[in-house]
Amino acid sequence: MSSRLRVAVIGAGYWGPNLARNFRASHDWELAAICDLDRERAQRVADGVGGVPVTRSLDDVLSDPSIHAVAIATPARTHHPIALAALQAGKHVMVEKPLADERVRGAEMVELARDRSLVLMADHTYCYTPAVLKIHDLIAEGFLGEILFVDSVRINLGLIQPDVDVFWDLAPHDLSIMDFVLPGGLNASTVAAHGADPLRTGKSCIGYLAMPLEGGAIAHVHVNWLSPTKIRQMVIGGTKRTLVWDDLNPQQRVSVYDRGVDLVLQSKETADARASRISYRLGDTWAPALEEREALAEVAAEFAASIREKRNARTGGEAGLRVLSVLDAATCSLAAGGAPWLVDAHTVNEGALR
Amino acid sequence: MSSRLRVAVIGAGYWGPNLARNFRASHDWELAAICDLDRERAQRVADGVGGVPVTRSLDDVLSDPSIHAVAIATPARTHHPIALAALQAGKHVMVEKPLADERVRGAEMVELARDRSLVLMADHTYCYTPAVLKIHDLIAEGFLGEILFVDSVRINLGLIQPDVDVFWDLAPHDLSIMDFVLPGGLNASTVAAHGADPLRTGKSCIGYLAMPLEGGAIAHVHVNWLSPTKIRQMVIGGTKRTLVWDDLNPQQRVSVYDRGVDLVLQSKETADARASRISYRLGDTWAPALEEREALAEVAAEFAASIREKRNARTGGEAGLRVLSVLDAATCSLAAGGAPWLVDAHTVNEGALR
Amino acid sequence: MSSRLRVAVIGAGYWGPNLARNFRASHDWELAAICDLDRERAQRVADGVGGVPVTRSLDDVLSDPSIHAVAIATPARTHHPIALAALQAGKHVMVEKPLADERVRGAEMVELARDRSLVLMADHTYCYTPAVLKIHDLIAEGFLGEILFVDSVRINLGLIQPDVDVFWDLAPHDLSIMDFVLPGGLNASTVAAHGADPLRTGKSCIGYLAMPLEGGAIAHVHVNWLSPTKIRQMVIGGTKRTLVWDDLNPQQRVSVYDRGVDLVLQSKETADARASRISYRLGDTWAPALEEREALAEVAAEFAASIREKRNARTGGEAGLRVLSVLDAATCSLAAGGAPWLVDAHTVNEGALR
Amino acid sequence: MSSRLRVAVIGAGYWGPNLARNFRASHDWELAAICDLDRERAQRVADGVGGVPVTRSLDDVLSDPSIHAVAIATPARTHHPIALAALQAGKHVMVEKPLADERVRGAEMVELARDRSLVLMADHTYCYTPAVLKIHDLIAEGFLGEILFVDSVRINLGLIQPDVDVFWDLAPHDLSIMDFVLPGGLNASTVAAHGADPLRTGKSCIGYLAMPLEGGAIAHVHVNWLSPTKIRQMVIGGTKRTLVWDDLNPQQRVSVYDRGVDLVLQSKETADARASRISYRLGDTWAPALEEREALAEVAAEFAASIREKRNARTGGEAGLRVLSVLDAATCSLAAGGAPWLVDAHTVNEGALR
Repeated sequence: MSSRLRVAVIGAGYWGPNLARNFRASHDWELAAICDLDRERAQRVADGVGGVPVTRSLDDVLSDPSIHAVAIATPARTHHPIALAALQAGKHVMVEKPLADERVRGAEMVELARDRSLVLMADHTYCYTPAVLKIHDLIAEGFLGEILFVDSVRINLGLIQPDVDVFWDLAPHDLSIMDFVLPGGLNASTVAAHGADPLRTGKSCIGYLAMPLEGGAIAHVHVNWLSPTKIRQMVIGGTKRTLVWDDLNPQQRVSVYDRGVDLVLQSKETADARASRISYRLGDTWAPALEEREALAEVAAEFAASIREKRNARTGGEAGLRVLSVLDAATCSLAAGGAPWLVDAHTVNEGALR
Repeated sequence: MSSRLRVAVIGAGYWGPNLARNFRASHDWELAAICDLDRERAQRVADGVGGVPVTRSLDDVLSDPSIHAVAIATPARTHHPIALAALQAGKHVMVEKPLADERVRGAEMVELARDRSLVLMADHTYCYTPAVLKIHDLIAEGFLGEILFVDSVRINLGLIQPDVDVFWDLAPHDLSIMDFVLPGGLNASTVAAHGADPLRTGKSCIGYLAMPLEGGAIAHVHVNWLSPTKIRQMVIGGTKRTLVWDDLNPQQRVSVYDRGVDLVLQSKETADARASRISYRLGDTWAPALEEREALAEVAAEFAASIREKRNARTGGEAGLRVLSVLDAATCSLAAGGAPWLVDAHTVNEGALR
Repeated sequence: MSSRLRVAVIGAGYWGPNLARNFRASHDWELAAICDLDRERAQRVADGVGGVPVTRSLDDVLSDPSIHAVAIATPARTHHPIALAALQAGKHVMVEKPLADERVRGAEMVELARDRSLVLMADHTYCYTPAVLKIHDLIAEGFLGEILFVDSVRINLGLIQPDVDVFWDLAPHDLSIMDFVLPGGLNASTVAAHGADPLRTGKSCIGYLAMPLEGGAIAHVHVNWLSPTKIRQMVIGGTKRTLVWDDLNPQQRVSVYDRGVDLVLQSKETADARASRISYRLGDTWAPALEEREALAEVAAEFAASIREKRNARTGGEAGLRVLSVLDAATCSLAAGGAPWLVDAHTVNEGALR
Repeated sequence: MSSRLRVAVIGAGYWGPNLARNFRASHDWELAAICDLDRERAQRVADGVGGVPVTRSLDDVLSDPSIHAVAIATPARTHHPIALAALQAGKHVMVEKPLADERVRGAEMVELARDRSLVLMADHTYCYTPAVLKIHDLIAEGFLGEILFVDSVRINLGLIQPDVDVFWDLAPHDLSIMDFVLPGGLNASTVAAHGADPLRTGKSCIGYLAMPLEGGAIAHVHVNWLSPTKIRQMVIGGTKRTLVWDDLNPQQRVSVYDRGVDLVLQSKETADARASRISYRLGDTWAPALEEREALAEVAAEFAASIREKRNARTGGEAGLRVLSVLDAATCSLAAGGAPWLVDAHTVNEGALR
């Protein structure tokens, strides 16, 4: 299949223009339409990329047989109905994070896509940045050893969203990245969520997620809309090396420290004996060269490739679902005053596309 | 009372030499003795400050009527018996953090000091740094407005302690600082502790504490022995301004951001209505000049002043006890898999010294 | 004059697309044409902004009576002939930095613009950034006191230009900023230039400019194409306060230090006496809030305003000429092995537009 | 020779206490005396290290046959007479930087030491820091390739010295480091010095040194007493890699960038042809682990080793002299308004100790 795939962008708000621009610039895609209930907003996006048809009608898009796929960038609560309609109409679907506003709805989307043999892709943009791709590869090669902890901080003076709390707004980034880079994905069995709403806006503006991982490891996320300083940092500690990703340091985003605590492992021994064999390494630091490349261009390419190769996307519906599982459990934990909550581990198999 | 007070330092390990050096340099104090079971170690400390008597016998110190006070820098589990013996012997007592290894023991110490009208001071050193003193004053003046959140990170490649976990080793710093700078002290009613021991040393090496505060605010602490990068940062968000303390940036340790989220408060309104009246300020940043002064010299001065003025020390036994209350509850929360745990709010009144 | 002015962009290389985009987005301007000898390149720029006529012929542009102005973004050596032709044709002219490749040619351009009562503007883009505008205002208000020194560093791994050395490539930024923010402009009477070409490319890749200013002050510039780390920092020391502009720190680009050396001035005294009355201030640091605004939009607005108000532009031909005077002298100093060289102070009066 | 060498410290001002402390802690040395005209000052230093004889009389020190060596930490103008007297008395001599206050005096000292077969060592302390030792080794191994440029910045709010200008106060650090790490030492044939004294203190408070090196390379130093921000950074560019030493970043003092400009060298070609074969590498960054070790302890060890092994010290009199040669020429250049000045290349051979 050498001709271009045709895609419509649904939603012309904050993220839609970025999608439009990248589909427009891609050799895989022809941008077929911009669809938004607010026609003027759609027109502005269309003008910005040099003239693309606009429409207010989702039905028109879905009934157009020349359109292969849609990219959904509407408010989270509308992802589910729009995606279902698109899949019903035989379109491949990419959805802005989070995949849906509830796990059960996301599961329905994954199932329908599987049944129709259509690609359902979660637009986990960060997973396509040079930094995160590098982190994924380093962990996969065993460069860090076994993972001991992952600590992610994403704080900033952010818009208080009308419909979602800070967990649903920001944590999908951290969770999708963890799911992407950790071997076996983000396999947290429980999550404890601690939130605060000190301005009494009706939703958490500050949030913490603690997730025990297998083997005694832990993952933790700090998200915050009320911080005047901007921090976007993830520390991934391993038995061999520790990696720090500082996304706001363009001169050295990823640093790998050959520094840490060593432990000679032996079978059958007490914790005390173990403690006595701990030693400290003070090794070099290494920062891999990273290209400056726009992640969304890679997202567009992967969406096209998965359709053409009839395979699941790298951040497919299941990945989106695993993120929703944690967010759903976090919402429950929050309601329960911070008590750790079971994460629904019932996976929905995407199946193999035929 | 114009003559110098005489003090003995008990414990010549990590912290003892610093105490000895500062008492030696102080005009308030005469360093009377260094006491340690390991006589050689005591001698090394004594030599380092230019010749001070050393002894292996605590009894000798306590039975010497010319000695007014002792400063205890021994392992945490010995603070209680040594402090009790010293108070029984009529000595004023300063104790390295944490005050004791259990809240109930600390309470006993506070009670005995009160009954004997002796000073019991917690050596919460950080509270005497120019940075923390400034933070205390700014909050007390209302410069930040009401406190919305406090987030503290203290991570570093640290020695895995044989007797205590990372909470008891590092969090006393964060908790004592919060207790000192927050109006009304650290009034957390519950704490949830999440720990990880991925190297199976038998104790948490990574830890998180979440503490809801009054009025919807939250305090959070992240302590970590396994991080190759060193971070010591506290963010204190207020309704008027937000303060960031970065202790590793000597050129600008404290920054105050006149930046944040504004909310016009009205009576009787829904959260939605509130949300709609939120606005954002992008204001200036201001960093107060701070002297470079050694905190421990201030600690020594405060200890002398409280004895001379027959008053409680600024970081007295009660402050030490509030820290122990949180640590005790954290230990319980940890054992309960991270479930939020009630903090014992039963205060022990230090009373007024007579 | 309420209708839009029509402008053609000459040159579709590195800078042209930015000019095109900003004229396109401006309410003051109508983008009338993109002109480049390479028609395809011109077309790509035109497509990027949504369809604008393109042409290979400068004559066509200049003979079109509906076009009021041209913006020149061609190689430096062509600025002079294109600008002269445009001015002869009655067009207002904006020229990318440097104004010309020699001072004498720039002077000719300024004279012709004055004689024809046309605007000749130097596109000193940095002077329109929020940071530099703020610096200008602070100095003008006397907030820094009298200026003692200006030190500018602009180093980066940069493209070795085929036609110009590192002085002519990078230093126009530093010099135009100094000229803009210093009261009375950049009044250096001499300049000493030290360059190095260790890769023997035939031109300086590393350069230093030292310029004594009036009253014992000094300005210094370090430009470097061979540095793997990127630094863009200017320190401006004054008798009252010192300002540091770190353009790569978006969270705190401009910091003002109320810190420095004080000197009580008295008449008739020796240097020794002066030295003995020096004292040191350790004051606060203050960082003004700065909007994130695109400088080139302001450049476009100023170009339009100066045309409409029949006045010289804020960074007019004379400002461009003062920069050329220093660069010309630097070239001579370089050829003379670094000997300080007189800067041509013979100004060309722009006159008042009629 | 297994017994300890006996050393006297001459001068108990700013640097003397550091020397005393390090000799005291060294296994090579016995600290024999502290000598200062101000007996009280000497006594304070002696007390600080636990009881060492003090004296006001240099003669007493020099006539004591049990003393092998002296370490001179007096004002620069007194280095020459004291060192000569000590060498005459048969003592090995270490001198705080700068070696002397004029090149010719330094030369006399080197000659006398050679004639007497005594060690004359320059206390170029920075050369014994783990960072500079590492830089030296990396360059010696060819890790950076051939050196293209060295740029050193040492700015800070510093005390305006009564007797020396900023060049003589601060630049000895940069020059001695360059001399130590560059293969073949600091072989600058000329130096141009640009200074400013905007507070009219009678001496330069801001200074720049430009020194062309062999093969088209350049070395540059910026020293400044009037900067409220502290920068201590050296960039060393090589044909293979570039190194950045940021002495104020304890977490990553030395970074090596495998990034830069490549050039395939061929014989007989024009500069244009060369320019066309330039390419750019975007490689990894690597930061070697460095111990935190006190440099002055290494200085003391090297002083003892050179005496025992009857060899010249690593930073011997000749190294000190090369620094003086540049400083002398800089003073002349300054007096000549910044004209490049010949550096006296007439070396004084230290000879081999017998």
